[in-house]
Amino acid sequence: MIERAIVLSSGDELTTGRTVDTNANFIADKLVAAGLDVVAIMVVGDYPDRIAWAWQQAMQHAEVVIGTGGLGPTADDLTTEVLAQVAGRRLYMDQAIADRIRQMFAAMGRVMPENNLKQAMFPEGATIIPNALGTAPGFRLDIETERGGRHLIVLPGVPREMKPMIEEQVLPWLQQARGGEDVYLSHTFQTFGISESALDELVAGSIPSAEGRIAFRAAFPQISVRLTVHGPPAIASQRLAELSARLRERIGAYAYGEGDTSMEEVVGTMLTQRRLTLALAESCTGGLIGNRITNVPGSSAYFIGDFVTYSNDAKTAVLGVHAATLERVGAVSEEVALEMAAGARGLAGSDLGLATTGIAGPDGGTKDKPVGTVCIALATAEKSYVRRYQFWGTRDWVKILTSQVALDWVRRHLLGLDPSESGVLRR
Amino acid sequence: MIERAIVLSSGDELTTGRTVDTNANFIADKLVAAGLDVVAIMVVGDYPDRIAWAWQQAMQHAEVVIGTGGLGPTADDLTTEVLAQVAGRRLYMDQAIADRIRQMFAAMGRVMPENNLKQAMFPEGATIIPNALGTAPGFRLDIETERGGRHLIVLPGVPREMKPMIEEQVLPWLQQARGGEDVYLSHTFQTFGISESALDELVAGSIPSAEGRIAFRAAFPQISVRLTVHGPPAIASQRLAELSARLRERIGAYAYGEGDTSMEEVVGTMLTQRRLTLALAESCTGGLIGNRITNVPGSSAYFIGDFVTYSNDAKTAVLGVHAATLERVGAVSEEVALEMAAGARGLAGSDLGLATTGIAGPDGGTKDKPVGTVCIALATAEKSYVRRYQFWGTRDWVKILTSQVALDWVRRHLLGLDPSESGVLRR
Repeated sequence: MIERAIVLSSGDELTTGRTVDTNANFIADKLVAAGLDVVAIMVVGDYPDRIAWAWQQAMQHAEVVIGTGGLGPTADDLTTEVLAQVAGRRLYMDQAIADRIRQMFAAMGRVMPENNLKQAMFPEGATIIPNALGTAPGFRLDIETERGGRHLIVLPGVPREMKPMIEEQVLPWLQQARGGEDVYLSHTFQTFGISESALDELVAGSIPSAEGRIAFRAAFPQISVRLTVHGPPAIASQRLAELSARLRERIGAYAYGEGDTSMEEVVGTMLTQRRLTLALAESCTGGLIGNRITNVPGSSAYFIGDFVTYSNDAKTAVLGVHAATLERVGAVSEEVALEMAAGARGLAGSDLGLATTGIAGPDGGTKDKPVGTVCIALATAEKSYVRRYQFWGTRDWVKILTSQVALDWVRRHLLGLDPSESGVLRR
Repeated sequence: MIERAIVLSSGDELTTGRTVDTNANFIADKLVAAGLDVVAIMVVGDYPDRIAWAWQQAMQHAEVVIGTGGLGPTADDLTTEVLAQVAGRRLYMDQAIADRIRQMFAAMGRVMPENNLKQAMFPEGATIIPNALGTAPGFRLDIETERGGRHLIVLPGVPREMKPMIEEQVLPWLQQARGGEDVYLSHTFQTFGISESALDELVAGSIPSAEGRIAFRAAFPQISVRLTVHGPPAIASQRLAELSARLRERIGAYAYGEGDTSMEEVVGTMLTQRRLTLALAESCTGGLIGNRITNVPGSSAYFIGDFVTYSNDAKTAVLGVHAATLERVGAVSEEVALEMAAGARGLAGSDLGLATTGIAGPDGGTKDKPVGTVCIALATAEKSYVRRYQFWGTRDWVKILTSQVALDWVRRHLLGLDPSESGVLRR
């Protein structure tokens, strides 16, 4: 029976406070969604005795232990060696992996430093978990202990390598290893513009606790709502669909997407479906909105360009904002936002023009326009919209929040809703 | 002797992946700065046996244990009760604290629910640590074990209450309790354009292990190198300066900064000092470089604007790239990159013009220009530079790597080095 898991992170950067351990959080989230009980998260530095202690303790209290970190080529990468000792297994060199590492270096026209071969060493009996995005593969070691069978899984600490290994290899193995038991299924709604407690009230009573569980997760600026059900596959699947429909109705337009998606993906899909194009004029967000939009593959189909006009001169010279308007009401104003949006739309020849201008801080605030004052405008063929907001927080928060509200404007406009209703947090 | 610490966080929200444990990171950072060796971070959910296990283990391996969470008034707040059992102490109610909690409720015009009195219970012999910002005080329990004296510290899990309690009460107590012991000091170099194993070889032998410890941390696309020394304050301080100078020489221009800084901050400081201005023309990076530059407070002093010209028409209409050039060699070419850089510089009237054009993928690659083909150009009053790169990885990697190399071009140019030497990874 595989019921309990412990997540183990290693690295001096974690125990010395240089890095926040987000790997353990990611893995714990996935394990809980898969129906496991995460007994503990343990973090130790790069010391053999501490790594050994953590694995020994973890093996006592959980059937599955997933460790990340310590698979690099350098002297302080100790995980494989220590775990082999703890499990009483010898190390061997996997020739196929060693060749692959050599080939990866050769393909880049480099000679492989000998210490990289360390990444081809595994405890005997290990099942290798391939790493498509880096030189260090992970592995799984299945051992028998006096407390029962244990599954020890080691993955690299680099998040972008570790995450697909969890999703594409560890979770499917786990599902299979747990056999014909009930399945856990979940569905997630991505929401924006509503606080966690207001969301809680909104969905209260919609899901009887015997039928499903709801978990909120705030990752500024959005909050996701995850519904999890469990039971025999067919029943769970039907129940998930029914309860999801109920939640969909409750959450309404606060949900900008479902599943693992982002506001920029949702907006991109809507623009593509409607064959519309977008241009931006950014001031306080400094390129962030363009960056988010172009993170989506295929965005060149609808994204023409972004005019980041940080100085007043650039606003005038590039976007045609009137010097008189800047003089009269200042760069952070509804008037300038409207002229920027219209200017971007005209210059790019796009269907929509979206503009931001504001004071991200920490300096530049005044009594009338304190830090966090932001104007957003949207120009379309038929109509233009503008609104002044008073946001809060640090420079990066103001930038992120502004970019989120601005993208939500496009989404709401395309849905036929009033864009300017976005960004007024329901608490 | 107080040398080792363990940080312990409790709460179901942490083990289920709903919340990232930033408390432990904050506390570990403070403890390491105060010279302690943080042996482990342990995280458990709200179960009495798990909390007991964590405290028992922690007491075995460290003289100081700092735990957060589980001090609230509800049934799943178990820390005080469990710790009293583990330490073999009875609980008592502190009348002064009970009165204070009643008064806090009265001041808010509310009747105190009786379960709040739980927050006035402490193990016998505890030293109470007042909480200026909440109802739950913390406490310290000093006990003798067969392994020596142990100091068990419990604080609330709410960050804004916990942080001042650490800084204003726990750290001063720690300083006093440790007396004239050795300090730990560290210095960090931020590097780019060299692999972790090549860095390891580069610095090998420069720092005898008896004198200092080196730790690498890869956070794509940069790698930091941290040197830590310890000893009596004056000696440690001198040793840190000497060893840092040695590392500085070894790492050379691969180090773009020292301490807690970023490439965009370093470039910003250099531009400010030289009173130079910068404009961008981005294609494949889509606004990312502008976003990074404007993440730095005060960037409006040197950043004029960013012309994100995603379509060919925008490149021609906005930046004056010749349609004939686009026709002849395509948008991803040295020629177009040069025209974009010159165009941005001319349009913005800036000292420097920096341009990127490339294929971020996953689509759009051809045999001659596969995904990852990127051209970077820098235009200055005297001279222009351009280079074609073949980068690798996913769309976001190509964007991030391109932005990093492009910013490094500005840094190298301002240092009088050849910009185009950047981005050729030394392995």
